[in-house]
Amino acid sequence: MDTLFSNTTVVTMDEDMRVLFSAFVGVTDGKISYLSRKAPEEQPAQIINGEGMVLMPGLINCHTHLPMAVLRGYADDCKLSQWLGEYIFPREERFDGRCVKAATLLSIAEALRFGTTSVSDMYDFCDEIAQAVAQSGIKANLSRGVTLFGEDFDPETHKGCREMFALKEKWHNYDRGRILVDASIHGEYTSDHRLWDTVSEFAINEKLGMHVHLSETEDEHTGCLDRHGLTPAQVLDCHKVFAVRAQAAHCVWLEPEDMALLAKRKVSAVHCPVSNLKLASGCAKVTDMVRAGMNVALGTDSSASNNNLDLFEEIKAATLMAKAVSRDPAALPAQAALMMATVCGARAQGREAQCGMIRLGLDADLILLDFTSPHLMPCHNVLSHLVYSASGHDVVLTMVRGQILYSAGKYLTIDLESVVQELASYAMPRIFSKEKD
Amino acid sequence: MDTLFSNTTVVTMDEDMRVLFSAFVGVTDGKISYLSRKAPEEQPAQIINGEGMVLMPGLINCHTHLPMAVLRGYADDCKLSQWLGEYIFPREERFDGRCVKAATLLSIAEALRFGTTSVSDMYDFCDEIAQAVAQSGIKANLSRGVTLFGEDFDPETHKGCREMFALKEKWHNYDRGRILVDASIHGEYTSDHRLWDTVSEFAINEKLGMHVHLSETEDEHTGCLDRHGLTPAQVLDCHKVFAVRAQAAHCVWLEPEDMALLAKRKVSAVHCPVSNLKLASGCAKVTDMVRAGMNVALGTDSSASNNNLDLFEEIKAATLMAKAVSRDPAALPAQAALMMATVCGARAQGREAQCGMIRLGLDADLILLDFTSPHLMPCHNVLSHLVYSASGHDVVLTMVRGQILYSAGKYLTIDLESVVQELASYAMPRIFSKEKD
Repeated sequence: MDTLFSNTTVVTMDEDMRVLFSAFVGVTDGKISYLSRKAPEEQPAQIINGEGMVLMPGLINCHTHLPMAVLRGYADDCKLSQWLGEYIFPREERFDGRCVKAATLLSIAEALRFGTTSVSDMYDFCDEIAQAVAQSGIKANLSRGVTLFGEDFDPETHKGCREMFALKEKWHNYDRGRILVDASIHGEYTSDHRLWDTVSEFAINEKLGMHVHLSETEDEHTGCLDRHGLTPAQVLDCHKVFAVRAQAAHCVWLEPEDMALLAKRKVSAVHCPVSNLKLASGCAKVTDMVRAGMNVALGTDSSASNNNLDLFEEIKAATLMAKAVSRDPAALPAQAALMMATVCGARAQGREAQCGMIRLGLDADLILLDFTSPHLMPCHNVLSHLVYSASGHDVVLTMVRGQILYSAGKYLTIDLESVVQELASYAMPRIFSKEKD
Repeated sequence: MDTLFSNTTVVTMDEDMRVLFSAFVGVTDGKISYLSRKAPEEQPAQIINGEGMVLMPGLINCHTHLPMAVLRGYADDCKLSQWLGEYIFPREERFDGRCVKAATLLSIAEALRFGTTSVSDMYDFCDEIAQAVAQSGIKANLSRGVTLFGEDFDPETHKGCREMFALKEKWHNYDRGRILVDASIHGEYTSDHRLWDTVSEFAINEKLGMHVHLSETEDEHTGCLDRHGLTPAQVLDCHKVFAVRAQAAHCVWLEPEDMALLAKRKVSAVHCPVSNLKLASGCAKVTDMVRAGMNVALGTDSSASNNNLDLFEEIKAATLMAKAVSRDPAALPAQAALMMATVCGARAQGREAQCGMIRLGLDADLILLDFTSPHLMPCHNVLSHLVYSASGHDVVLTMVRGQILYSAGKYLTIDLESVVQELASYAMPRIFSKEKD
């Protein structure tokens, strides 16, 4: 046994939602090898004293754009079109792989610090994103979000498609699946049927998942109805986009028929409540999606529209928003909100056989939270505290596959100082210097 | 000069919303005595290095019930009537002064840790609450929330009124106004005109402020219309409840006429977005209230309906909710949300001449936040980060009137260990033991 968490409160997130007190969790060769109220007889290589702590599965952030950290707080409180057109797009045009790698490492450090052990990313410069993920030890489903704006289209020469194919060739299943590559269509409104057919076929042939933005804004949703006489879910489905495991980010404007269709196709909705509120995109009907049989996971979206990667905020926002929208304080109870950030996230990523719970044989993707601060006392109900009182700041240790990646302010695989230095000396001047405007 | 914060970013929250970089703030005899981009010539007794930090006015939480910390997470995800009737009220019946004092100290520790320097509390056992406040060094507006449920009424013998009078006699203006006592009617729906007249007269004669719950739920609001043919704001106004400085908590169901009336009376609304969402009470129309000319402050409500006292969460929730309700991402920008938690809070408490800004001569109620964590990098806009990216967990130092009350995990005026011991050995068994049910 490599590591033993001793005398700790264990939130398993298993089928019975068992919570074990004063329990022991052992880790061997990156897997959970021991779970009991009794101490093991075997002597572990290291013991982590979990008294006053809560051990739970690492959180899974199913929709983000890690490199956008450099745009965090660069522009807020303005209309979406202005935000994108005047602020975000002009800066993104200056990104290069080197900027992206540094920004991604910063975001991974933040995610780890807040207890996230796996992310689903959609962006550009994916080779550098994959390098950062590989170095850091975090799990990731990576996708090159491809667009097509009416130009001539040949998949073999189209930049986005070529990069998507190359990403798959180089990085899919890296480190025994720590990195998975998903196919990706950025969104219905940023492409057309030629791309949808190409990407669907690629995903089906290569047995990849799919990552798309879906019905995020009312304009996007009604615009699609005008263009195609079908909703985004319906028109993409016609082109087999949902023939594979798919993560559909946002799903704010889904209609009941969309929910039924997506449930049938086993599509996972990725609910991003904070981003949806901040951009005034609307309030996704999570309770209805769950009732329709959809798997619903959580995402932060990028830190430019959030503005952080603390998935605990998302868990709380999801349940608060569900209660407000349904005018029912019993809506989306603590347990359901926690499931969205763990087991449902694992399912969305196609990792349900490997993580999302504390169970023997699963990967040791674990986080430890300090429960001795005033805001977590007294503790009548651990699940309630995790959802309504805690924060990603309460995380003191983050482990992926048995390897400690973050512990008490220290990053074990990321040299944060040199990342900050690289951002200050290279990325920020490149992206924000006035001369280049 | 007693203390100098050196080389720090200063968010003044003054009329020009000035943010000073690499600045110096000096504190002498509990007051802000120096504010400049240049270091002072005078040698201070202690220097606090503020590099990489942000110094801002302490936050002001204008509606809470501190002793309810012991009920944090005891019951969630159920209907309001069930929550109150089955869980909260039966336990509150077992409270005594000793429980309340310990629970209040726990809550003050939490509030200080999250950067709150002044609170407005409404509860019972106020002498013990005042003792805890006095000991801790925090500022507080304390009120005994009085109810009257149809019983015979003589103010001289009515328990709530007697305690309110006694609270005023013993604690009003304690420590040169660090404690202010407000008069309080718990709410329209928990009392009648006999109490309103008595408490209004008391507040007017004694020159006290007023603290009430107002139009929190739709049932309360429409019930009042049924009972009186007037809204809660209108009927209380008829009985002079708003003839003094008043804090009206929640204001979720105010009608446009109510807003105009309350603006005219200079009543401060205390917006409690997280509690309103969690209890599915509704979404207060903050933008409309501000437009009507009302002063709007922020409150956490109790940690039983929140479930923590981190006012930074409230700041973010307020702006997110305003954007969602108005479907406008420009609604309630960062600066406005920060004002609600500082200058508007000071005005609501009647403390605008003493705190809420960093300005020469005001009390040194200051908090320092560490801005070197990954989730606060890069920093294009300090105000944006305070609202959208930061958390109360980023606070590393809390000072009231020049006295450090919290610093890097340590409480200087509260023995947290003995508070926790008192809760475990006395309060929790008293309130939750099964035998007494």
